[in-house]
Amino acid sequence: MPIITLTTDFGMSDGFAGAMKGVILSRCPQAQIVDISHEIPPQDVISAAMLLEDACGFFPDGTVHVAVVDPGVGTSRRAVAVETDRAFFVGPDNGLFELILRQQSTRSITELSDAAFHLPNPSATFHGRDIFAPAAARIAAGTSPQSMGRPLTDLVRLKLPQVIRLPNGQLEIHVLRVDRFGNLVTNLRTTEYSDWNPAARAVRFKIGDAEIAGLTRTYGDVPPGSPVAYFGSGGRLEVGVNGGSAVERFKTARFGTVILATH
Amino acid sequence: MPIITLTTDFGMSDGFAGAMKGVILSRCPQAQIVDISHEIPPQDVISAAMLLEDACGFFPDGTVHVAVVDPGVGTSRRAVAVETDRAFFVGPDNGLFELILRQQSTRSITELSDAAFHLPNPSATFHGRDIFAPAAARIAAGTSPQSMGRPLTDLVRLKLPQVIRLPNGQLEIHVLRVDRFGNLVTNLRTTEYSDWNPAARAVRFKIGDAEIAGLTRTYGDVPPGSPVAYFGSGGRLEVGVNGGSAVERFKTARFGTVILATH
Amino acid sequence: MPIITLTTDFGMSDGFAGAMKGVILSRCPQAQIVDISHEIPPQDVISAAMLLEDACGFFPDGTVHVAVVDPGVGTSRRAVAVETDRAFFVGPDNGLFELILRQQSTRSITELSDAAFHLPNPSATFHGRDIFAPAAARIAAGTSPQSMGRPLTDLVRLKLPQVIRLPNGQLEIHVLRVDRFGNLVTNLRTTEYSDWNPAARAVRFKIGDAEIAGLTRTYGDVPPGSPVAYFGSGGRLEVGVNGGSAVERFKTARFGTVILATH
Repeated sequence: MPIITLTTDFGMSDGFAGAMKGVILSRCPQAQIVDISHEIPPQDVISAAMLLEDACGFFPDGTVHVAVVDPGVGTSRRAVAVETDRAFFVGPDNGLFELILRQQSTRSITELSDAAFHLPNPSATFHGRDIFAPAAARIAAGTSPQSMGRPLTDLVRLKLPQVIRLPNGQLEIHVLRVDRFGNLVTNLRTTEYSDWNPAARAVRFKIGDAEIAGLTRTYGDVPPGSPVAYFGSGGRLEVGVNGGSAVERFKTARFGTVILATH
Repeated sequence: MPIITLTTDFGMSDGFAGAMKGVILSRCPQAQIVDISHEIPPQDVISAAMLLEDACGFFPDGTVHVAVVDPGVGTSRRAVAVETDRAFFVGPDNGLFELILRQQSTRSITELSDAAFHLPNPSATFHGRDIFAPAAARIAAGTSPQSMGRPLTDLVRLKLPQVIRLPNGQLEIHVLRVDRFGNLVTNLRTTEYSDWNPAARAVRFKIGDAEIAGLTRTYGDVPPGSPVAYFGSGGRLEVGVNGGSAVERFKTARFGTVILATH
Repeated sequence: MPIITLTTDFGMSDGFAGAMKGVILSRCPQAQIVDISHEIPPQDVISAAMLLEDACGFFPDGTVHVAVVDPGVGTSRRAVAVETDRAFFVGPDNGLFELILRQQSTRSITELSDAAFHLPNPSATFHGRDIFAPAAARIAAGTSPQSMGRPLTDLVRLKLPQVIRLPNGQLEIHVLRVDRFGNLVTNLRTTEYSDWNPAARAVRFKIGDAEIAGLTRTYGDVPPGSPVAYFGSGGRLEVGVNGGSAVERFKTARFGTVILATH
């Protein structure tokens, strides 16, 4: 049974996600539709890209992942399908798939330009229903994405702040998103951290006026109410508060800075 | 595999939707349950009717659509099943299905009055679990809805403001709901618009003290922050703001008035 | 097709629930995954336990119920699988399953201690993905939970306020949670009520300074805006307001007291 996952910013109080599901099941009745999320903050491509990075790699080979966070719908932004060694990705060409694609090997990128694969008279505001859902259903049913339009050689890049080694040897990193529990998820990955601190020396984390001493394994390793810095389940450095909310404690939101120092 | 869709105002923080799914799968194990929405604003029959109108038509023939937004549960309001040329609809008789039924041809309306098809000892407050879910499961498994109770000849009507042609030739329309992105969705459909403005003359839209010049194809056709009036993917006139929120900009909520003028 | 239900406090704006679904489908492709809820209030074990009590009993025999509301993740709290005469339950050992287990007959309790059944290198913060999802998939595919670790003889108990008979013959009960509609759901069940009031005498309900006269069958039995006390669809006494919100009216939240008197 082919699997099609959905990740959107449509919420569930409108009929957008429902219409996409109907379009898919009308064209690929045997598809198993899996909701990854419809609660991406509206038009927040970075959060969606991070969520896809965290979730898609756990699905079986051959899964078709549809993502629609699409501030450019109706403009000249391209609609694309990407085939990798493990899966298919269908959505707008705006950086959504950049992070998950780093985990996989890309085989082809196709612009979904052939109108024969769209719904008739596609709307200018809802390509999720009119272009992406029918394309995903056809791919799940066995059609090659390369047959659906023009080949492309690259994708639009996601704009993300980079990890910076400061002249004094400290590391400057940035918060990329805040999760449901108020944890701050940063742009620092374990490999970059190990490159910077190969001897695993003790680290201090500076956020605004506050400081956290030491890397921790998990919340439960500190007393309730204490802050923690730890590598989260997605492999990124996170800042949390045991039983509390780091976003409230540190008043640091997206793109806020954290400095790492070893002395 | 028969499809049963669910549309409710139950939210997902209570066990209501889960209990309905359990009842369905206990009676029709091969059913494919599709969540359209459990996030209808509580007791908001109009929003639910519009969502069903937007989504149900895209599902395969034979789908069973269950909707439970039911302020009258436990009173004398009737429980109904409607069969059309394309699908089945199961829920309270309070106007929920009026808009989607305009797209289809009704074959039968049945009051779900035969207690043999209810759960034993149905509660007075949760007919979704005790009456609608078992009925939907039985229909998905092949039972005719007409065997489940008394035939009816009509349904309770949905109360909606009408499009009005003013004596001065202008058109008065109303906001029916606000979507997740803050767009105002009105009661004006493309056909009514074309009837009023067959020559497709330039149009001004008046909302409170503000005015929008001209009909636009999509958000991206105006600069960021600019308001737009366009026909949305559901075929209704909508008012939005590119990259912003029309409900905040225009302070116009449900049932607010928009005036269309061609000079 | 084996059914696996999911109940978590992960929300849907992060990739947590999606990753769990991927893990399950990778190990048990034929599983039918059913979302009961991902909107449990963060770390609210009592609300989750009540939701499981309300929903799980309606699923077919053999269903695997996974619940992850897990404030103790990464500490020494145990990961468990419970087999009953009707179903399987997989999650942290923190009282989550206590209420639903009262409806069923427990056959075995197993600590999920055998790392061969975990994902490789499980994280310290996300046992839903790394321990509970793979265990549930294996159980759904036919593996006995007892083969996955050490047998246990008991589970951690859920801390809940008890129903108290006061010296003056009145009954003191407590609000356990507030549902989406603002109804107050209490710890009083129909059987305890009947034991206390076998003659079904008229009852007064005292909440703070307010009083509700008489037990009602459902909201619709009183005028709009009037308060009601009734037994809800889950078999617990609830306090509501017809067309309104009891939590707003009575300023009584979780663990607030309600007194029942018959004279």
